[in-house]
Amino acid sequence: MKRVLSGLQPSGQLHVGNYAGAIQQFVQLQDSHEMYVFIASYHALTSSRDANELRQNIRQVVIDYVAFGLDPAKTNIYLQQDVPQVTELSWLLSCICPKHMMDKATSYKDKVAKGLAASIGLYTYPVLQAADILAVDADLVPVGEDQRQHIEITRDLASKFNHYYGDVFKLPDAMIREEAGVVPGVDGQKMSKSYGNTLDPFMDEKPLRKRIMKIKTDSLGVDDPKDPDTCTVYQIFRALAGPDSEQTQALASRYRNGGMGYGEAKQTLFEFILEHFRDARSKRLELTNDPGYIEQVLKDGAEAANKIIGNVTDRARKAAGL
Amino acid sequence: MKRVLSGLQPSGQLHVGNYAGAIQQFVQLQDSHEMYVFIASYHALTSSRDANELRQNIRQVVIDYVAFGLDPAKTNIYLQQDVPQVTELSWLLSCICPKHMMDKATSYKDKVAKGLAASIGLYTYPVLQAADILAVDADLVPVGEDQRQHIEITRDLASKFNHYYGDVFKLPDAMIREEAGVVPGVDGQKMSKSYGNTLDPFMDEKPLRKRIMKIKTDSLGVDDPKDPDTCTVYQIFRALAGPDSEQTQALASRYRNGGMGYGEAKQTLFEFILEHFRDARSKRLELTNDPGYIEQVLKDGAEAANKIIGNVTDRARKAAGL
Repeated sequence: MKRVLSGLQPSGQLHVGNYAGAIQQFVQLQDSHEMYVFIASYHALTSSRDANELRQNIRQVVIDYVAFGLDPAKTNIYLQQDVPQVTELSWLLSCICPKHMMDKATSYKDKVAKGLAASIGLYTYPVLQAADILAVDADLVPVGEDQRQHIEITRDLASKFNHYYGDVFKLPDAMIREEAGVVPGVDGQKMSKSYGNTLDPFMDEKPLRKRIMKIKTDSLGVDDPKDPDTCTVYQIFRALAGPDSEQTQALASRYRNGGMGYGEAKQTLFEFILEHFRDARSKRLELTNDPGYIEQVLKDGAEAANKIIGNVTDRARKAAGL
Repeated sequence: MKRVLSGLQPSGQLHVGNYAGAIQQFVQLQDSHEMYVFIASYHALTSSRDANELRQNIRQVVIDYVAFGLDPAKTNIYLQQDVPQVTELSWLLSCICPKHMMDKATSYKDKVAKGLAASIGLYTYPVLQAADILAVDADLVPVGEDQRQHIEITRDLASKFNHYYGDVFKLPDAMIREEAGVVPGVDGQKMSKSYGNTLDPFMDEKPLRKRIMKIKTDSLGVDDPKDPDTCTVYQIFRALAGPDSEQTQALASRYRNGGMGYGEAKQTLFEFILEHFRDARSKRLELTNDPGYIEQVLKDGAEAANKIIGNVTDRARKAAGL
């Protein structure tokens, strides 16, 4: 069984974009793969300065993961801060990481351009990310196209280390998500917390419906045939229901045939979201009222992760002469 | 009692320059201060690629420390790799360390100019160094003038972290060694392993005497009055015996009075070194034959260091929201 690793920054309540872009895939993968999913709390420090907010966000993202269907019996969910050996591995890797490799990484420049503080943490975070991945001997890392470079960096660092010190790290492969990041928000731009355009599947019904009704569309009338592929409502529906599903095909036909107004399309999306996330919504309520359960999930996850990470760290230390 | 921290890279057998530049001072400090001295094995990875050599060097430097008079009953001697929390603290600090702070650090450029690989480890090592210092709540850090900037960086990072997250780190003071690094080697340049000009106080008598006899001097004759301050033999003697000691004053007079040739001055230095390091030489032999003792010293040292470092790390993690 191939081992899959994924990490997600705890940037608050998860939205439909996170779900369709990543978590939906994890839920599918957990039946056929050995899954390790961690909350990247160390990485979160590159943008967070509010300790209380971070603490809450960390718990919230675990609750949301489990509510969305990550099953702790199948997927090891752990906090990055519970496997501090990754920072040690990160140091070992940083000593064989040429500086120009970080200078060439594009995400640092992008993030600084977006207003994040130009810190050493932000600059070197691909090294810690490599440590996260190599620490669990991961076979596969599901990522969006924008993270492909970081998996290349991870492979480069692993090869270099192995070259100097012998066969220590397993080289992981990227598992590129075609659809990653293409879920639009209510304004038609990429759905993202920082744009304030997210759809929150855990919202109460009334405000959720209101938010969906506000999705931007063009001004075609009810009778006009419409192009589903340029419509935000349809794109969100397709991302959730799957491009090849009957429901998605049926909705596309109704767009093309004319006779369906945007109000009706939005109502269809609203009802689909309620139905699709029915279990998640009730599960989330349940989990919120049972913090002890989440703590146990994290304890078990950390234990499982530490078993592997402890071995890998020992291997790397010994190989380097420590 | 003020707490003093110092670290030294395990770059092989210690020489007279290391002793006079740093260790002699530690031996004095251990009676009046709470001493923590660590072997900077993580830092060594910025220059080492040879695991076996590193492993040997780490043990050798501990043996030499104790032989030179660091008393494990007074000084906590530990390996950096036995307190891996410093790498975690280093990450926490790196997230509040502006990149331009590292860009301005001069030692990176100096080291790259000297041929060290331009790695991320080398580039960010002042952050790990700050973590080493802050991890033990150090009051004082004895350093040479060339390390003054790094103590400033440490203070800056501590202040920034405290500013964001509350009163977590104690701000250390530099304890600048006036004489640091001025001990000349047998060729008159600064004594340094990389110049191949060191005097090794643990050498067998015969080759040691031969090496001392080869120290470069000018060509004044036996009867000529000589300037001690421009003579390498005298400078080494003064560094070991102390500038104000009777022996040093007496030797200076004999230089100025004339009637003493350089051969005699060298013989005086040779005899002084044998006498000065008599205990160290026999102690070292004893320690080399008792590896179990060194392991115990390191175990005790790590335990003492971990007690403090564990607390500081917890404090920093909680403050940051982890």
